[in-house]
Amino acid sequence: MSDARLTSLAASLPATVPFVGPEAQERAAGRPFAARIGANESVFGPSPRAIAAMAAASEHVWQYADPENHDLRAAIAAYHGVPPENIAIDAGIDTLLGLLVRLTVAAGDKVVTSAGAYPTFNFHVAGFGGELVTVPYNDDHEDPAALIAKAAEVQAKLIYIANPDNPMGTWHSADVIQRMIDAVPAGSLLVLDEAYIELAPEGTAPDLHPEEERVIRMRTFSKAYGMAGARVAYAIGPAGLIAAFDRVRNHFGMNRTAQIGALAAIQDQAWIDHVRARVTVARNRIADIAADNGLSVLPSATNFVALDCGQDGAFARRVLDSLIKDGIFVRMPGVSPLNRCIRVSAGTTADLDAFAAALPKAIAAANQGA
Amino acid sequence: MSDARLTSLAASLPATVPFVGPEAQERAAGRPFAARIGANESVFGPSPRAIAAMAAASEHVWQYADPENHDLRAAIAAYHGVPPENIAIDAGIDTLLGLLVRLTVAAGDKVVTSAGAYPTFNFHVAGFGGELVTVPYNDDHEDPAALIAKAAEVQAKLIYIANPDNPMGTWHSADVIQRMIDAVPAGSLLVLDEAYIELAPEGTAPDLHPEEERVIRMRTFSKAYGMAGARVAYAIGPAGLIAAFDRVRNHFGMNRTAQIGALAAIQDQAWIDHVRARVTVARNRIADIAADNGLSVLPSATNFVALDCGQDGAFARRVLDSLIKDGIFVRMPGVSPLNRCIRVSAGTTADLDAFAAALPKAIAAANQGA
Repeated sequence: MSDARLTSLAASLPATVPFVGPEAQERAAGRPFAARIGANESVFGPSPRAIAAMAAASEHVWQYADPENHDLRAAIAAYHGVPPENIAIDAGIDTLLGLLVRLTVAAGDKVVTSAGAYPTFNFHVAGFGGELVTVPYNDDHEDPAALIAKAAEVQAKLIYIANPDNPMGTWHSADVIQRMIDAVPAGSLLVLDEAYIELAPEGTAPDLHPEEERVIRMRTFSKAYGMAGARVAYAIGPAGLIAAFDRVRNHFGMNRTAQIGALAAIQDQAWIDHVRARVTVARNRIADIAADNGLSVLPSATNFVALDCGQDGAFARRVLDSLIKDGIFVRMPGVSPLNRCIRVSAGTTADLDAFAAALPKAIAAANQGA
Repeated sequence: MSDARLTSLAASLPATVPFVGPEAQERAAGRPFAARIGANESVFGPSPRAIAAMAAASEHVWQYADPENHDLRAAIAAYHGVPPENIAIDAGIDTLLGLLVRLTVAAGDKVVTSAGAYPTFNFHVAGFGGELVTVPYNDDHEDPAALIAKAAEVQAKLIYIANPDNPMGTWHSADVIQRMIDAVPAGSLLVLDEAYIELAPEGTAPDLHPEEERVIRMRTFSKAYGMAGARVAYAIGPAGLIAAFDRVRNHFGMNRTAQIGALAAIQDQAWIDHVRARVTVARNRIADIAADNGLSVLPSATNFVALDCGQDGAFARRVLDSLIKDGIFVRMPGVSPLNRCIRVSAGTTADLDAFAAALPKAIAAANQGA
């Protein structure tokens, strides 16, 4: 629009959005997807205890949520063995990233991330007038040393890394990430997005030192906890920085039912063990399906697998388009050479049966050209 | 905190928050409130159909919500008889106000509101570096002519008015508000907060002309719809401005269960009729309780009543403190002379019985001094 009442920053922002939802694709196709394995949602669902707590809370939704998130914050703090003052809760990592960018990035400030990493972070940086500086992935991994070097070079306010990574599913060990934290330049803050950490091998997350001033860590109930639609996530960081979120967050922004569900969910770690086992089975199955089609997958520490289609981005795009046409919702990385892959979320047996049935046809269609 | 990594704006913001939640007061007191009638929540709850829809949706919360809010947006548009392109949905009016301020208010821009009006709007204006300019209430009503005159004088980007008003419960007729819209100065935008409109008499809301460039209207599921904890609200405005929200909003920020609940709620207008009747009974009861104590109430077009304690703000504060000590959660306006009142939400019979029992003691205590 050309509305003279918008700020110059708002007027300059593009109308594009980070992700199109599967529902929009379903409406365009006129039918639902047969398998919803594109957004790294947990098809295995939330803890039955969380479901029961949320269902029971429905009639009480006339009450605002506790703006201090007191009980959930205490439970998360206890689970991690850190003080509640080091925990900020909000409506998903997207919200926390937006608030953090708002707190730290003024117009023209530099922010470093990897080319092809999480687009919603980039959306927030652009939305507050920050300047994104990217470094390439290295062998399908984000490159901690290159990120740090670039941050020092451009005096970045923020450095973003996801460990495990999305969209590739690869990861670095805790000691690599700890060395990265130790190397954060003065004036910079490392945003360590650990959305998938519960699904990674032991030894992937560095120990929590919440008063470490160089890093803020993001965790979520959207992935292993199976509550993407609830919008609950938290940041772990130094108490001073965590308190700053209170200056700008929507204090009454949390859904009360989600708050109650997350409290039940974090207290049912047996469910996370169950999800981990199911995800492992699904990851192996996706690898088998790939192998049946002469393709390989990248190792994954997440609830999705990057399946290497073996050619260029245009070829992978044709595979993806054919899958979507066949009712299989999947996504793919946006940047070369990552975009030789498609990204397949851990599905149920039925989801992956449908994927297995559709993939050979999709590869054949892709081989025949656009 | 003194963190050199904060923006200068963020570093300048106060640590104070607009509202303390009742849960924090309960934790401090070590016991729950007997009556929760302070936050204008609807104790009558949401539509039973909405409750059932939300309970059933709990197990599906592993899915993100549709980021386009397609079905809910279509239902809201159909209900109002306007195109969906004129509707922006987000997580409560607070979120919509924050986005609108972000889109339109740059550092130093002026914003006009009434002294004592909704503090969360002011929180957002300050949070984006805007400068608040206030005009006084006139006879316990917001003053449309004074707001418009001040906006013209200071070249305000935004003008805020709530009709019906919070915290006083008073209202202007549709023709007064329409004249206000017609008088908005060039370069300004009127934010017409109609959070309580479903509880107001016929003839309070001006006709909807969604392409009217001078106004954006805010509606919510938090009040009459009884879903404050769900966080669902919408703005009605010109399509160009509505589209601008897409540039900055969290596209996947909506709670999926809330989205489903709101869709069921708007399709059950019989429930709103029921709530209206219950609210009327409760308003009358609050007036009776006031009269029994020699006090009067302001007329109200909302689900709360401003009870005039008949003396100054310090006296009303003592009444309020005593009520809270006695387990009655109520709030009061923050600015003189509004703060001679306490604000009591429409409660159940049991809530108002508890209030009736506590009020004489609170007045006696207030008369004895602090």
